[in-house]
Amino acid sequence: MKRTRVAVNGYGVIGKRVVDAVGLQEDMEVVGICDLSPDYRLRIAEGLGLPLFAPGKEARTTLEAAGFGVEGLLADLLAAADVVVDCTPKKVGAAYAEAYRKAGAKHIFQGGEKHSLTGHSFVAEANYETAIGRDSTRVVSCNTTATVRILHALDSSNLLARARGVLLRRATDPWESHQGGIMNTIVPEGSVPSHQGPDAKTVLPDLDVVTMACKVPETLGHLHYWYIEMTRPASRMEVLDALRRQPRVAMARAADGLGALNAIEELVNDLGRPRNDLWEVVVWEDILTVQGCELFLCNQVDNQAIVIPETVDAIRALAGAEPSGAASIARTDAALGVLKDFHQPFRSAAGLRPGPYARGRG
Amino acid sequence: MKRTRVAVNGYGVIGKRVVDAVGLQEDMEVVGICDLSPDYRLRIAEGLGLPLFAPGKEARTTLEAAGFGVEGLLADLLAAADVVVDCTPKKVGAAYAEAYRKAGAKHIFQGGEKHSLTGHSFVAEANYETAIGRDSTRVVSCNTTATVRILHALDSSNLLARARGVLLRRATDPWESHQGGIMNTIVPEGSVPSHQGPDAKTVLPDLDVVTMACKVPETLGHLHYWYIEMTRPASRMEVLDALRRQPRVAMARAADGLGALNAIEELVNDLGRPRNDLWEVVVWEDILTVQGCELFLCNQVDNQAIVIPETVDAIRALAGAEPSGAASIARTDAALGVLKDFHQPFRSAAGLRPGPYARGRG
Repeated sequence: MKRTRVAVNGYGVIGKRVVDAVGLQEDMEVVGICDLSPDYRLRIAEGLGLPLFAPGKEARTTLEAAGFGVEGLLADLLAAADVVVDCTPKKVGAAYAEAYRKAGAKHIFQGGEKHSLTGHSFVAEANYETAIGRDSTRVVSCNTTATVRILHALDSSNLLARARGVLLRRATDPWESHQGGIMNTIVPEGSVPSHQGPDAKTVLPDLDVVTMACKVPETLGHLHYWYIEMTRPASRMEVLDALRRQPRVAMARAADGLGALNAIEELVNDLGRPRNDLWEVVVWEDILTVQGCELFLCNQVDNQAIVIPETVDAIRALAGAEPSGAASIARTDAALGVLKDFHQPFRSAAGLRPGPYARGRG
Repeated sequence: MKRTRVAVNGYGVIGKRVVDAVGLQEDMEVVGICDLSPDYRLRIAEGLGLPLFAPGKEARTTLEAAGFGVEGLLADLLAAADVVVDCTPKKVGAAYAEAYRKAGAKHIFQGGEKHSLTGHSFVAEANYETAIGRDSTRVVSCNTTATVRILHALDSSNLLARARGVLLRRATDPWESHQGGIMNTIVPEGSVPSHQGPDAKTVLPDLDVVTMACKVPETLGHLHYWYIEMTRPASRMEVLDALRRQPRVAMARAADGLGALNAIEELVNDLGRPRNDLWEVVVWEDILTVQGCELFLCNQVDNQAIVIPETVDAIRALAGAEPSGAASIARTDAALGVLKDFHQPFRSAAGLRPGPYARGRG
């Protein structure tokens, strides 16, 4: 089997996770990373044996002066790759588009870039097939990915008439939370709709969705409240079934000690996942309420990890390495250990990784 | 004019504000307060010359041992009052109901007590007249008061079909925020509807309202997102006019530097208000969006101050001192300096109080 060669440009919050996730897939490999900040992140990458490339000559000089071994420039990395995943900071990616095209490297942007940059936005569960063989796509942001997963689940079951959501966004990412100062307030977004609703339509154009968003002072992730009008009165069980059929949507119960963002994070920690990553949209099963045609739903979104499985699928789609979205999703999720239910005996779950204590028990 | 004699049982977050607000009205006076904690709050009360009563003999001994002058017991205070405002902690109030009844004192509970305790729940703008001459009522909680004001405004203009709200609640009150520890999470309420929707119906039984609520880590107040279906397509201007007609709903503009809870608080501080109190529900005018029959609205709620003007009106209603709700509201609001608009030249506003610096300028 020819493995898809993947380059990762930017080894930050998303980039390092993409590298790890790609490394877990049988059909792809990381051929190198490109970055310019000579800090702890790249020393970890060096320790992991990742070939390091610099975006340009100046950056190469800086990296080498800091003692890093540099394999070459971005152009060299692109020449060696089938697909490059752009994980540079928001709005920086666009500046690289020309370089990616010139090198003939298929490329994936993250949700911080505009839809128009590639003309295609991607959520595997909703539109994998439309990306097959394309030169480029854009994996939408964390909030938009979660929005599409939830609404697509209901839409696929012909239950969705319209969705109105309130998105509570984490104030900042944990790794840079020392930069923001303590925030004791809530900051509503200045207009309605917030960008996530329209952004979800770049993936599913026919959605009737409006979002309102605000920033709240915590760093663990996002919380969404959805008010959904269904096409007909449905039972709570029908709605739960529709959500259970959707990949990467997992159920949790507040009554099971999982009644807040931090509790879910603690469970994920205990599962032995890397970096506390939560790839699933977590729906609180016991908060979910149906009232005639109306559905009230609350879910959690990890802003750092949710797009990682999507990015792996996007690589496969662009490379034309797997014609079936469902098959790609199944392969990605099995490799990562994505779960469908957080209320189960975990000993039998694919997701549970024994920690170093357990390893020592043998 | 016979002034209504008011007793205040509990000199905490609500009690001290009720005392101050009653003191600003021409037609009522505070005849004493009752409390049992010999701490800084009562030393302030002593400094203000407020007659102090103890709930019982044991408390009297404790207070006297701490050096406080005690005028008598609660029963003595009740005998001297026309109306007692219960400001004891949540769920403590119910234990005093019998004492109030026995003393023949008309009494007002706060929203922490159940509707069934008095059989009447109060928001002046919505149902003042139904409380006139009653023996007791209950001023509903901060979130419910705000909910009733907003929905009543729309209902009065025949615009309200149904309302679905997401209420972001402050984690704790500022004065006790050292007790909770740092919270870095969001805690969704375990079921839908949260209690505020049903509670609003104790005031306006015909409302079609469902609320979802969560606790967020800040101490400044609450933020509500409303998704409202109107009875017909209406213009943004019609909606704004309906809200402007509602007392105690004030408009602010995010674009005017007021785009978050803390900014509104800072403005209120600059207005010279006592304790940074925000009596109005603040609606962000430039976030408010209308789309056919749909209305999207975001507002701020001060959890400590919003019920204060309502409590003053409730005193007047129970005492039978003012037959018109609109007149009572106007009197209360003029005395406090309640505003209708936070985007105006404040020099001409009743609300602006010169601070000590300004006073020194003469």
